[in-house]
Amino acid sequence: MIIPIEQASFDRVEELGLKGAALGDMFRLGLEIPPGFIISTAECRAFLDNGGKISDEMMEKALEGVAEIEGKTGRTYGGAERPLLLSVRSGAAASMPGMMETMLDLGMNPQTVLALINETGDARFAYDCWQRFARIYGRAVFGLDAREFDEAIRAQFDRAGVQSPERLSHEHLKRLGERFLGIIKKNRGRGIPSDPREQLRDAIEAVFLSWNSPQAKTYRNLRRMPHKNGTAVVVQAMRFGNLGPDSAVGSVFTRNPIYGDNKPSGNYLIMAQGEEIQEGRRTPRSVSDHLAEDFPQAAARLREAMALLEKHYRTVQEIEFTIERGKIYFLQTRDAECTATAMVKTAVDMAGEGLITREEAVLRVSPESLGQLLFRYIDPEAQARSLTRGRGGSPGAVYGLVALDAAKAKQIKDSRREVVLVRPDARPEDLEGLADADGLLIAGGNMSGHAFGLIRRAGKPCVFSCPDISIDLESRTFTVGNTTVGEEKAITIDGNTGRVYAGTVKTRETTIGEEFSALLSWADEIKTLGVRGNADTPEDVRRAVEDFGAEGIGLCRTEAMFMAANRLPVMQALVLTEEPSEQAELLDRLKEIQKSDFAEIFKTLNGRPLIVRLLDPPLHEFMPDIDPLMSDVMEMRRNGVKTEAMKLKEALLQRVMSNREVNPMLGLRGCRLGIVRPEIIRMQVEAVFESACDATAEGTPVWPSLLIPLVGHVNELALVRRMIDETASETMKARGMDIPYSVGALIEVPRAALTAAALAEHADFFSFGTNDLTQTTYGISRDDAEHKFLGHYLVERIMEYNPFHKLDPDGVGRLIGIAVADGLRAKPKLFLGLSGEHGADPSSVEFCHKLGIHYISCAPHLVPVARLAAAQAALKLQFGKGGSPQ
Amino acid sequence: MIIPIEQASFDRVEELGLKGAALGDMFRLGLEIPPGFIISTAECRAFLDNGGKISDEMMEKALEGVAEIEGKTGRTYGGAERPLLLSVRSGAAASMPGMMETMLDLGMNPQTVLALINETGDARFAYDCWQRFARIYGRAVFGLDAREFDEAIRAQFDRAGVQSPERLSHEHLKRLGERFLGIIKKNRGRGIPSDPREQLRDAIEAVFLSWNSPQAKTYRNLRRMPHKNGTAVVVQAMRFGNLGPDSAVGSVFTRNPIYGDNKPSGNYLIMAQGEEIQEGRRTPRSVSDHLAEDFPQAAARLREAMALLEKHYRTVQEIEFTIERGKIYFLQTRDAECTATAMVKTAVDMAGEGLITREEAVLRVSPESLGQLLFRYIDPEAQARSLTRGRGGSPGAVYGLVALDAAKAKQIKDSRREVVLVRPDARPEDLEGLADADGLLIAGGNMSGHAFGLIRRAGKPCVFSCPDISIDLESRTFTVGNTTVGEEKAITIDGNTGRVYAGTVKTRETTIGEEFSALLSWADEIKTLGVRGNADTPEDVRRAVEDFGAEGIGLCRTEAMFMAANRLPVMQALVLTEEPSEQAELLDRLKEIQKSDFAEIFKTLNGRPLIVRLLDPPLHEFMPDIDPLMSDVMEMRRNGVKTEAMKLKEALLQRVMSNREVNPMLGLRGCRLGIVRPEIIRMQVEAVFESACDATAEGTPVWPSLLIPLVGHVNELALVRRMIDETASETMKARGMDIPYSVGALIEVPRAALTAAALAEHADFFSFGTNDLTQTTYGISRDDAEHKFLGHYLVERIMEYNPFHKLDPDGVGRLIGIAVADGLRAKPKLFLGLSGEHGADPSSVEFCHKLGIHYISCAPHLVPVARLAAAQAALKLQFGKGGSPQ
Repeated sequence: MIIPIEQASFDRVEELGLKGAALGDMFRLGLEIPPGFIISTAECRAFLDNGGKISDEMMEKALEGVAEIEGKTGRTYGGAERPLLLSVRSGAAASMPGMMETMLDLGMNPQTVLALINETGDARFAYDCWQRFARIYGRAVFGLDAREFDEAIRAQFDRAGVQSPERLSHEHLKRLGERFLGIIKKNRGRGIPSDPREQLRDAIEAVFLSWNSPQAKTYRNLRRMPHKNGTAVVVQAMRFGNLGPDSAVGSVFTRNPIYGDNKPSGNYLIMAQGEEIQEGRRTPRSVSDHLAEDFPQAAARLREAMALLEKHYRTVQEIEFTIERGKIYFLQTRDAECTATAMVKTAVDMAGEGLITREEAVLRVSPESLGQLLFRYIDPEAQARSLTRGRGGSPGAVYGLVALDAAKAKQIKDSRREVVLVRPDARPEDLEGLADADGLLIAGGNMSGHAFGLIRRAGKPCVFSCPDISIDLESRTFTVGNTTVGEEKAITIDGNTGRVYAGTVKTRETTIGEEFSALLSWADEIKTLGVRGNADTPEDVRRAVEDFGAEGIGLCRTEAMFMAANRLPVMQALVLTEEPSEQAELLDRLKEIQKSDFAEIFKTLNGRPLIVRLLDPPLHEFMPDIDPLMSDVMEMRRNGVKTEAMKLKEALLQRVMSNREVNPMLGLRGCRLGIVRPEIIRMQVEAVFESACDATAEGTPVWPSLLIPLVGHVNELALVRRMIDETASETMKARGMDIPYSVGALIEVPRAALTAAALAEHADFFSFGTNDLTQTTYGISRDDAEHKFLGHYLVERIMEYNPFHKLDPDGVGRLIGIAVADGLRAKPKLFLGLSGEHGADPSSVEFCHKLGIHYISCAPHLVPVARLAAAQAALKLQFGKGGSPQ
Repeated sequence: MIIPIEQASFDRVEELGLKGAALGDMFRLGLEIPPGFIISTAECRAFLDNGGKISDEMMEKALEGVAEIEGKTGRTYGGAERPLLLSVRSGAAASMPGMMETMLDLGMNPQTVLALINETGDARFAYDCWQRFARIYGRAVFGLDAREFDEAIRAQFDRAGVQSPERLSHEHLKRLGERFLGIIKKNRGRGIPSDPREQLRDAIEAVFLSWNSPQAKTYRNLRRMPHKNGTAVVVQAMRFGNLGPDSAVGSVFTRNPIYGDNKPSGNYLIMAQGEEIQEGRRTPRSVSDHLAEDFPQAAARLREAMALLEKHYRTVQEIEFTIERGKIYFLQTRDAECTATAMVKTAVDMAGEGLITREEAVLRVSPESLGQLLFRYIDPEAQARSLTRGRGGSPGAVYGLVALDAAKAKQIKDSRREVVLVRPDARPEDLEGLADADGLLIAGGNMSGHAFGLIRRAGKPCVFSCPDISIDLESRTFTVGNTTVGEEKAITIDGNTGRVYAGTVKTRETTIGEEFSALLSWADEIKTLGVRGNADTPEDVRRAVEDFGAEGIGLCRTEAMFMAANRLPVMQALVLTEEPSEQAELLDRLKEIQKSDFAEIFKTLNGRPLIVRLLDPPLHEFMPDIDPLMSDVMEMRRNGVKTEAMKLKEALLQRVMSNREVNPMLGLRGCRLGIVRPEIIRMQVEAVFESACDATAEGTPVWPSLLIPLVGHVNELALVRRMIDETASETMKARGMDIPYSVGALIEVPRAALTAAALAEHADFFSFGTNDLTQTTYGISRDDAEHKFLGHYLVERIMEYNPFHKLDPDGVGRLIGIAVADGLRAKPKLFLGLSGEHGADPSSVEFCHKLGIHYISCAPHLVPVARLAAAQAALKLQFGKGGSPQ
């Protein structure tokens, strides 16, 4: 289907693409739009299904569209007088900036060049259009490598003795165009068709085919976008930013997309066309600094347009424009790619300006992107001297091993180490390694908005524009001043400040700013789901509650308390001894360790809920590694060592071997361990309640709960609950206190979910442990899967998402649904929570909210993400999918 | 509640117990029953709940019952003339033979002894009753050790110079009674109350308390019977088998309980009482050989009674009787404990006699017990010379390490080796180690029906009556002739022939007999569920189909084809090489191996269905063990070895290490492996279809299916199915054939069950792999669980059954139910099967039948069990719980 731009609008974005739809909207807002038409995405799909053939019928309709443009402009496509030139641009329904083809100046041939000279009296303009047209055609239609054209340009610069394209004369440009034609002829054995109709067919085909270009596919894979939709094509009359010094092209963000300040941010190039501004050969001028002075009339109209479009779309816009002989034309507008910082600031500001509601502000910020806001920064106390300073392209500080290309990045990543990808530029081919990189260092200074968008959305810290960095691919090193850094050496980059450091510099996590606090307080007013933190140490508890606003601790993993270097030996000794008196003494020492932790935690929480999970992992997790131990013992044996130390080591090896399990994930752990070794449970329960009594005696309110891990059978739950109740009651009785507490079951194997009705009889609450529940429901060991097959599955799209990151609604979620329904039927007052990494994933949070789960619990630094996601879930459930009340 | 025997009947068995209910039935059948009454199980529960006190109210009612007996017999309880003596016997609703107390001759005191002498003129009889009464009282009421009484008897024998109790004079018996009283006084400081009412209270209490005796509890634990029910008490007028040479006690099976011949089998003792026949001090006489001669009138009446009772209960009965002065009284009848052989033979015979229907015959045989019929026998070609020959007490041949007591048996079992328990006798204390034993060797020749029942029901081979065996607990050995065998040495016993062998003798599996074939053919007519075998080799396929009647192969595990010693190296090489050309060559060799197996299998099956499962286990299962390999490499390194062999070994170690997984059960295996290494799938599919084409070309019909293991996501299934379809179609096309086949999904992780609707779109059938599905649903690794905690769970009754033996209906079963319902909704023609060890467990088979699953598949030798269980399931579903049409 082909329709005129005047009939396009945003509610048809799926068929018309973002660009086409936005052009229709701008037309209706009264903005100056070059006339044109849109070829729908359905035509692209038909084309691709049809083996890459454009039907004659479609071509006929396209020519009818051209005839309408001719009518509106009073020009003739391919005409010997007042020739009409066209732009043919891609535009899918979802933004894929820079990934597909755009063709300009269509309609050029020897005849129309002369006609343009004749009409404008500007031979330089005509030949400029001519050489641009030839170059784009060569690349887009003939699929030639851009580098050959670039070399021809550089050669022409040298010959002309200039540095910048606008200094080339019409003669130079004419010769350049001829050289381009030569390149095409040489490589393809034929030239550009002179018939403008054939050119149009070629152009539409090129745009359609670019939907499936390798880079477009990679882009969609990375963002998990469907491959089947296809792109629309926008065909418009050309407007010329290269028609003399009173013409220009530019693009502008209505607000600053990095920091969010309410000030336009953008650049323009005088005497330029199309994507030249992003090619980085000339230094652009700043819209906010110079446009009003250079083009007062256009600048005023742009200001009006920005206000109109922000009001219409109610979000920050990125607008592309062309100024032709002082008059501005609008070529595109779209929602700006903002950093998380900018997203938060503009949303809060717009709510303050009354442009959007607070609910909309809350909905506006994507919780996933908050990771960036919460990213790490260089520890101010680190006192590291930076190698150089560029500009911050994407916030956050990170260290990693240097990779100079995508292959090396993948190799380092596969060995599970951090990677900083170091590249000369930020062209698509430079960003191939983005997925594997933890951070990017780009030497060049001209980063396109496309590259920024890609990097920022991936949440990777990035430093760019470090001209003193030179990369040597021969020796696989880069050099700054007199420091040379090889591949696989560690560097640290700070995307916040633009600084680059040699070696590993200590980083710290950030706290959150003013606008963010405001947004989160709005979110808290909206959400109904409780948000708690998973925290195992007093310091983590403090961060969760004080820094990130958790309402309590949903999961305190007691085993983590034993993992510190000075504590582990006590735990190891407990596992290794079989002497009851020694066991009792070691348990006492562990109890004191736990008590001192709980004392601090209760004080920090000051009455907020604390859910303590009983010891969960298999005992062998506390044991030394078996391989080095075995080789030690064998070495000592061989050397005939028979000391006491040898005996101890042999005994240790034997115990470690006997504790070894084939599948420890499914072995003697969780409540099974507590049932076989009840003294451990008793010690833990005593520690919780003695601390709780101490705190209460000091006037600190406490709210303890105990969580029983790995319940699979109701009798396990009943038995352990009885042990807990007995120990708690004895402990409190000895202190003459009676502190309310609750006992819950951790639902982390499928059978627990399937027998929830029975479990509910013995539990005050359920906590869904979705990490292990995902492992057992899928039958996937996370330790093994990610590098052995899950990575392959995700790349090949066998799975659409990693179920350890996003809760699987069909399997794991269905089990949770069964458990919630059965549990509540058996005990309507049953309290329900979810702990696990899914606690901060927005789609998983939404799932929990819909099910009526009472709280989610996640890592401390993700608590803000969860708070925001919970508010969005509430709004979406209240107002339908979009979540907006309007 | 207390009711007269006349009012009892079998439909009140729960309140009145088996013994009481049967007595009521016999009364109504006109058989001679000593008058009496029954104290219900509810009274026992009240007694136990009430802290072990008999209420005065109940005691009053009991005395009213006694008064009624007095009225019917014309005797007086404790009377100075014609005194009434009573028996007080336990009798629970479920048979617990020998586990609880029985008291006889109640009402004895100095006065009644004299009255009895006076009445009968038989002082020996009176003092015989007197000493029996005292001995039982001492044991049952005062809880004294039987051995002290036994020693007193032996001392009395010595003093009197006799060998057998019936040769003791009335003086001897009087002195024996006095000695018994002395033992009681010495140990307890008081004597037996002379008031018969107090005796009655003591007796009832003793019976009630014996419900919770350690042996009774152990018995119930072993058989998973509930502990809460309590026992009833039967109080009856005594009839005396010791009233002179025309009196006797005995018991008889209406048919042979070992072999099932339709011929009474039992023994009696003249001048004896109660359980004397089971004490083994005297040699009993055979009912079939002598009773008609010794007691013609009683024998005739017994024949009538046997016919009547078989007709009434429609099953083999075990009847206890007393003959008093030539007249027979019936004291008990119950369903006989039969060997599986006898169960099958009697059921088939009874159906032939028209006593029961064929359906009833099918229902009559417990599928669990068929294991015995299918037990192993000594390989006739083994040519072993036996140490000695006793009698076969329970069929089957087994070898194991000698244990002389329960503790040693447990110790050997815990180390996962087989155990033969060797004991002097088969008293309850001798059988303590039964649960841990794989077989029993009993030196003594007098085995009670109780002991036989226990051992046979446990399905343990047993040899008894080897008088030449002497056991020495000091040296922990036993001796036969001049061979001495120590504990933990291997012996072999053959419960079929009674032979005992030193060392390990080769055993073989049995084939099935005539009656069994008849029964199974009836079962096949009744059942609707298909029964297939799990078989991996041509020989297993032959056994499943030809020996055991499988309808096809439900699971052919291809990996097993690679496990043979001459095949494993090829598979190992495939895993270890990274050279593509070498891989291709090795795959070809594996294909030829598989093809030759499939060729034979297709021939054997001759058109019956064959389901081939693609490679399932993780590759490291084919690898050598890591520990010895590592120590080899380290040794070679230390010695500075730098040969080619060393390099190979190091490379091997590295590959083995890199294939190692933390949780292999949940790792790279099943279809995941096939997706990552598709060449393995293609090789397997080619092997199947090339063989199928070969067979077809030779005129053998084939029916192949392929089963995709470990499916968790619909895309996995779709992808592998596409690979199968493509390879199959290419292979058949090359041969110009088109063989129908189907492709199924193995449902063995919860997510497969939960997403069955989606899977059904891509599968022709589902096979539920309940072994792995149980592992993942419970989150239990079977490799680790059984000895680490599952054993503990079963002993402590935290789980009522082992879910790897019996399908868990609440968790695993619920998932299967979801998958069946969703799968059939999506594809009504979906074919459904179950493979896994549950395929032969009757309750699991019943579960499958009810769900509408189409076939089950189990190990070849369990196929008959499954056929029978399937028929029973069909009958039960048709006719309600009991399954009987009447």
